[in-house]
Order: sequence, then C-alpha cells, then structure tokens
Amino acid sequence: MKILLNSDLGESFGIWNIGADEDIMKLIDMANIACGFHASDPLTMDKTVKFAKKNSVSIGAHPGYPDLVGFGRRSIKCSSKEIESFIIYQCGALEAICIANDVHVEYVKPHGALANDMMKSEPVFLAILRAVSSYNKKLKLMILSSNKNDYYEKLAKPFGVKLIYEVFADRAYTKDGFLVPRTQKGAVIHSAEVVMSRIKLLKTTGKLTTVDGNKIDMKADSICVHGDNKKALDLVKSLREFIDEV
Amino acid sequence: MKILLNSDLGESFGIWNIGADEDIMKLIDMANIACGFHASDPLTMDKTVKFAKKNSVSIGAHPGYPDLVGFGRRSIKCSSKEIESFIIYQCGALEAICIANDVHVEYVKPHGALANDMMKSEPVFLAILRAVSSYNKKLKLMILSSNKNDYYEKLAKPFGVKLIYEVFADRAYTKDGFLVPRTQKGAVIHSAEVVMSRIKLLKTTGKLTTVDGNKIDMKADSICVHGDNKKALDLVKSLREFIDEV
Amino acid sequence: MKILLNSDLGESFGIWNIGADEDIMKLIDMANIACGFHASDPLTMDKTVKFAKKNSVSIGAHPGYPDLVGFGRRSIKCSSKEIESFIIYQCGALEAICIANDVHVEYVKPHGALANDMMKSEPVFLAILRAVSSYNKKLKLMILSSNKNDYYEKLAKPFGVKLIYEVFADRAYTKDGFLVPRTQKGAVIHSAEVVMSRIKLLKTTGKLTTVDGNKIDMKADSICVHGDNKKALDLVKSLREFIDEV
Amino acid sequence: MKILLNSDLGESFGIWNIGADEDIMKLIDMANIACGFHASDPLTMDKTVKFAKKNSVSIGAHPGYPDLVGFGRRSIKCSSKEIESFIIYQCGALEAICIANDVHVEYVKPHGALANDMMKSEPVFLAILRAVSSYNKKLKLMILSSNKNDYYEKLAKPFGVKLIYEVFADRAYTKDGFLVPRTQKGAVIHSAEVVMSRIKLLKTTGKLTTVDGNKIDMKADSICVHGDNKKALDLVKSLREFIDEV
Repeated sequence: MKILLNSDLGESFGIWNIGADEDIMKLIDMANIACGFHASDPLTMDKTVKFAKKNSVSIGAHPGYPDLVGFGRRSIKCSSKEIESFIIYQCGALEAICIANDVHVEYVKPHGALANDMMKSEPVFLAILRAVSSYNKKLKLMILSSNKNDYYEKLAKPFGVKLIYEVFADRAYTKDGFLVPRTQKGAVIHSAEVVMSRIKLLKTTGKLTTVDGNKIDMKADSICVHGDNKKALDLVKSLREFIDEV
Repeated sequence: MKILLNSDLGESFGIWNIGADEDIMKLIDMANIACGFHASDPLTMDKTVKFAKKNSVSIGAHPGYPDLVGFGRRSIKCSSKEIESFIIYQCGALEAICIANDVHVEYVKPHGALANDMMKSEPVFLAILRAVSSYNKKLKLMILSSNKNDYYEKLAKPFGVKLIYEVFADRAYTKDGFLVPRTQKGAVIHSAEVVMSRIKLLKTTGKLTTVDGNKIDMKADSICVHGDNKKALDLVKSLREFIDEV
Repeated sequence: MKILLNSDLGESFGIWNIGADEDIMKLIDMANIACGFHASDPLTMDKTVKFAKKNSVSIGAHPGYPDLVGFGRRSIKCSSKEIESFIIYQCGALEAICIANDVHVEYVKPHGALANDMMKSEPVFLAILRAVSSYNKKLKLMILSSNKNDYYEKLAKPFGVKLIYEVFADRAYTKDGFLVPRTQKGAVIHSAEVVMSRIKLLKTTGKLTTVDGNKIDMKADSICVHGDNKKALDLVKSLREFIDEV
Repeated sequence: MKILLNSDLGESFGIWNIGADEDIMKLIDMANIACGFHASDPLTMDKTVKFAKKNSVSIGAHPGYPDLVGFGRRSIKCSSKEIESFIIYQCGALEAICIANDVHVEYVKPHGALANDMMKSEPVFLAILRAVSSYNKKLKLMILSSNKNDYYEKLAKPFGVKLIYEVFADRAYTKDGFLVPRTQKGAVIHSAEVVMSRIKLLKTTGKLTTVDGNKIDMKADSICVHGDNKKALDLVKSLREFIDEV
C-alpha cells in the first residue's frame, strides 16, 4: 500500500503566524492549504503555494466554515446551497493563486467542523460533492477512512468525484473502525513508537489495530500529520523515512 | 464605434439587498460582479452569475478592497503584493462560480476606491496588471477612459493585458479629458436628454463634449450605467434602444 | 396588563439598509438595537440610538452570534465562555454609544439563532445570565414567554437578573404554550383582525388562544412587532392605538 | 519625573497567539488592550483584562481601524463620524469586559495607523477627542510626545480631555523633537545600554538626546515598551528596575 503524508498548512492569518510550515513542508506529500475562510488570507495563500511548489508537494484546497475567530472549529448551520457555493468560492480562490504560480489544486479536504459535519450529515456531504463535481470533476475529495467507506463511495459515484481516504496517525480507532472521540481516554496516541508500529502494520498489511486490540482493514491513501511541536515533527520525520525506505 | 453597456451588479450581501439587478441585467452587455470583499458572498455571486448567464450578459470580476462595512469606497493603504494577491483571489473565486455555471469571467473592473487608486497610483496599476497577467492574460482590464490612455497602454503592454475603456454616461469631463470631480458643481449630469445626446455624439463621432463646450476625442468601449432608481433605469432603457437601433 | 411594543431595529450594515426604522420607531416602546455582530456597525448604532432617543423609546441591546453574512440566524456552536464574553462586549459597545447620547441600555434581548439556542439550551441561557449579571444586574433579560416561564425564573434568580417576557403578535401557540414551529401550517397568523383580537384578549385577560382553540395564561410584558411592509406597519399602528386607548 | 511603562497587549486573535503578555504584564504599569477591530476578540479581551487586574496594571483601550487582516497598520480613509463612533464602540466594549471583572478603562491609546493619522490629521485627532469626551471625559488620551505638544493641548482643552504623553524608549528623535522615520537609518536604537542611558537622562532631567547630539526637553508620562523577544524583554526588566529604584 502506497501511503502519502498530508498536513494542514498555510493557516496563518495576517500578522499572526501558526504552524511549522517551513519544517513540515519538506516532509510531506500533500499540503492542505487554507483558503481564507477559517484561516489564511490571499498573501499567506500565495506564500504557501510558492512554498509547496518549491518542495514539490501536491496542493489541496482546505476549505472551512466562514469563521476566522473560531478557526472553523465551530459548526455553523448553513444551508446546502451556502455550503456548495462557499466550497466552490474557496477552491477557485486557491486555484487562481496556484495558476499564478504555475501549479494546480489537486484535491479538496474540508477543514475542522465542516469535515466533521461532512462525515455526519448526508446533506453536507452531498453539498460538498455537488460543489466539487460542478467546479472540477478532476479534484479528488479527501475524507476520513472508516468502515463506512462503501456508503460514501455510493454517494460520490453519481457525481463522478473520486474519494481518497485519510487515516490519522496518532488517533485510536474503535472496533467499528471510527475515531475514538477526543473526549474519551486514549483517543490520542502519544507514544511515537506505538504510532510508528501502527503505521508500519497499516502500510504492510492494510490493517489498523483498534482500541480493543483487534485488527481491522482500513483503506489509507494518506496519513494526516501535524508538526506543532518538536516531538510531533520528529514523528513526521520518522514516518517520512519509513515510507521512503519501504 | 461599437459601445457596450456595463453595470456594477451582485452587490448585495447576506440578507441585505441592493441594486435593481433584475431590471438592469436585461438591458446591459457586461455585468461587473462583486467578489465578496467589498460586497457579495458566495451564494449571492452564484445567483448573480446564473442571472447574467440567463440574460447572455458578459461577466467581469469586480474586485475591491477588503472592506464590507465601507463598501470598498475607502482607500486602504495596501502593499503591491497584497493588492496583487487579493485581485487574483477574487477573480479566481468568481471564475470558479462561473465554471460551475458553464460560463467564464471575461474581464476585470476594479471597484470603488481601488479603481480610483489604480488610476492615480502607478504601483497600484502595476499590481493589478501583474495580478491579471499572472492569473489569466486573456482577461481584459477595464479602466476609465481619459486623455492619459496612452500612458496606461504603455504600462499594460509588457504584461500582455488588453485594456478596455469605459466612459461614464452621466458624468461631466474637463477639457483635459478627465472626470469633473464629484465635489465640483456640474460633475453629474442629471438631464436624461443631455446624457442621451452626449452618448449619441460619442457613438457617432467618438467625441465627448467637455464642461467648457469643447469636443474632444474619447475612446469608449463601454459605458457605465446605474439602475438605482426609476429615472436612472429609464435612461438605461433609452441608451439600450439607441445602441440597438444604430 | 400593561403591554409594551418592542421591535428589532438598527439592523442595517454599512451602505445596506433594511427595516422601516423611520416608521416603526414612532410606534413602539422598546427598540432592540443590533450591536455589530449579526448586523449594524458603530455609525448605524449611533444613528439608531439618536433616533430612539428622539422618539423616547427604551433601548435594549440585541446581541447576536458573530455572523454578518448569516445575519445571526445560523446557530454557531460556541463555548459558554465565548457567549458570555461576546454578550458583554456587544452590550458594552451599545451602552457606550448610548452614553455618548445621554441615554442607557435598559434591557437585553438576544437575536435570532442565539435567542433560539438560549431557550433550548440551559448552558447558553446560563452563559447569557452570567454575562448580564456580571456586566450590569440592572439590565433586564427579555425572553420568549411560554409555559416554562417558572423554569427560567428559577435559573435567573441566583443571578439577580430580572426576566421580561415577550409574546409574538402574529404567531400561533401550541396548547402547551409554545410557538408553533414555522415549518408547520398556521404558524404565522396573517389576518390583522385575528392578531388584533388575540392581543385584545391577552391584554384584558392575560390569556392567549392556542391553535386548538383553548385559552391559556400567558405572561406578556411586551409584544414583538415588525414593520417590514405596509400591511405589517398598519397592524403595528392598530396595536399602538389599541394599547394607547385602553 | 515619574515615568510609567506602557505596552500593547492582548493582541492575539482567536487561536492565533502573539505577544509575550505573560512576561511583559509583570513589568509594566499600563496595558494598552486591543478591542477587537485590529486584533483580539471578546474572549481574549476577557483573559487580558483578568491578567492585567491580577498584576495591578492600569488598563487602557487600544482601539484601531477595523482591519484584522492588516492588523490596523494600514490607514483607512474613514469619515470623522465613523472614527468617532468606532472609538466609542471599542472603548465601551472593553469597559464592559472590565466592569465584569471589577476594573475600569482608565485611558485611550489609538493603535497603529489610527495613531499615526491622529498625529498627522487634525480632523482625525478632533474625532478622537469628540469620541473620548462624549463617552467619558475622565479617560485620558495618550499621544506621542513631540515639540508640538502645545498644539495638541490647545485642541484637547475645549473637550475637557486630559492628554498623556508617551516616548518610545528605543526610537531616535530629530532635533525638532519628532520620531526619526523608520525608513531612515538609525531610527531604531538597538543598543540596550544606549536606550537605558537615554531613559535615565529623560527621567532625571526631562531631556532627550536627539540624533544630532542635542538635548531637548521632552514631556514623558509614559514609555512604550515591547517584549517581542528575549533581548527586548531584558531591556524592559532593566527599565523596570531602574524606575523602581529611583
């Protein structure tokens, strides 16, 4: 199984900087770039696109709810039409900045609360599919891998939108193949060693160990990584090395 | 001389509606559509694009300063890089919504204070040229016609961006071929008859009568019209009839 | 029973005007003034406060979710601390503009989705109580009257915040004393005559007729009115006359 | 001469943190707290007020232009009425959050481009005076000390607003008593020793050494300090020690 590393980048805003974009961009394959609604601004987007291009990293649009102060982490009850139009808006804004830099948006990965809502609400998922499909059918849509992948495939098929599946490197999964909620103990795996062995198993066998010790099949086109701190960055480096050597 | 009518449309925002888009769209050739920075939002943009398409009206991006509360009418001291990137952002956002509706942005007309700054400041004009040129050289840039057209042509040429010139139907011009400032008496021509006769002269001879009674050459690819009230709308109807019958 | 008329006013934003503030302000007792988060801006707030003062109308803060494009009608999942602090922020901003005009905010009436969430979610209601209580205990909090009034009184008591109850003039109520949801038939009463007779009954007996024809007790300190159109405005005029003559 | 240390604090926004508030708050006398227009949000304001209170630091409102993405550093051509109303709005919002924490706003110090415009444009200065005066005459207005202090005093007097003067610890001054523009060499004094000796001279004699080596009188109620990096913070510590021991 070929696994690519993706990370959320370009999430600074105006003078406010966050993220270790400089370090992480060199280690990943896919950069999910914020589009100005939950984070970023045109100038930051331009810098981030230039930096992704320099590092030969694929660019994905990372659209979110229109909520800077909440960083797109708060669900906003939007109509399907609203979601559809703001997804198209954000993808097009990023694509324009890509075009000006001779690169292109290759996929879409919704951010934060919008991503959660997409996985939980069929109308939201359909709105996003309509958006991607009507704007550019060649864009892939990245969603969270789970044992409901077939369900999403069925919904996506009529739209001609290809789904790609991501797995969170440092998150525990239930026996039913869903993320253990962050509110529960053990939801986040803090040991770099454990994370590494999980990813190794995943890459070599396509299986993920669940919280109760079982091994389940889990589709994984990409693994989501973060570089917020030294420890996280070291883990990404190890993952990169492992993936490159296999 | 072939003259097209253009108008600023799609300048509602959320629940707040302005403009007689319904009426004016049927009478014009080119719709300058707001892109969410000085007015509009993704849903409003989608509605406006659909409406322009239905009426076979050419679509232009109408980007402005990021200033909703000031409606883009207040100059903001932005760097050239900021202007360049937010022009690209806004054009791309509108183009994406156009693509989803099977149409395309054909030209760019900066809005309000940004348009003023573009005509007054070479760095701003150059930033806009860089934006248009790096995003899509096929987009034309609409600027205010004056006796400085050659100057702007010279600046635009290296960028490969074609300029198109607009004349304001209801504004007086100085003997030097500039708009009489709104602060001066007689800046706005209120008589529909006078406006009509000016436009007739312009279309048949390429000449515009100045405030001091002279006739000067004035390039006019397009005339900017407004439909804010019944009287304005009637004038647009008359202009439409005149242009169609000639 | 003394009943005051309240209305949501000052909901324009920048150049975008809505509402018949000019007409409605002359007919009401209490103006719920938007505070810049779901609508309005400092200049609009100043104009609205001046206009309320001129018409001797009580001023209430009308805080909403931070969502201009959605006009505060979309629920945003905010933490209690966020809600508490943005309620205080908005009340204080309006009070400052009041002070500059020698008047004062007298009560608080949450807007739109925030008002709905307040009535449905105890944490939201408590966050609002904490906000009002810590900022200014003299401010009354206006909530929707229902047969759960006792429940809200119990929650409000420890905070020392006095509740005032509003009834919607043109909305139907269930036999349990709640608003008939807008999604159901008959939710809005369109006949001005029926509305008038309902309000007369309410004012003289304290009772409201429910959709199934029963009469139930309903506390009503204030009636919420709108002036969006000629018909609505005429109804407010009739209500004003009725209230004044009794 | 008694000199107080002031610093701009609470300039984070949502999840984006900037500033060494934790360190700097312990060393200063006056905290200029952002009010949500150029930076900050209600929750951040509440945290910052609580932290100022805990450290017994005076609170000043630090209002700016409505421009988060530009951090209030870009001049926006606003009308006097707009400036007046948004100053009142921001002061009131912060005062409300102060009241909820049993403290009060004691002064106003405009931020960034607004501060620059205030010093350069009489209409802007007058708008700010009108705002402060109509909202709360007890609030002092902090401005940049220069040899034009008398001019500002004259303008402020009719409004009953007391001015307080700040000097920048690390900036060079011209022989006419103005800041050497940042675009000129030597505008910023990088040597901590030089800064310390300048402040010592100022405190003991009321005089400031100019770029050409002269000593001029300079009123200094407060010195503006920053804590952006270790070196800057060390300088503030030294200043604090010096001021405390004298």
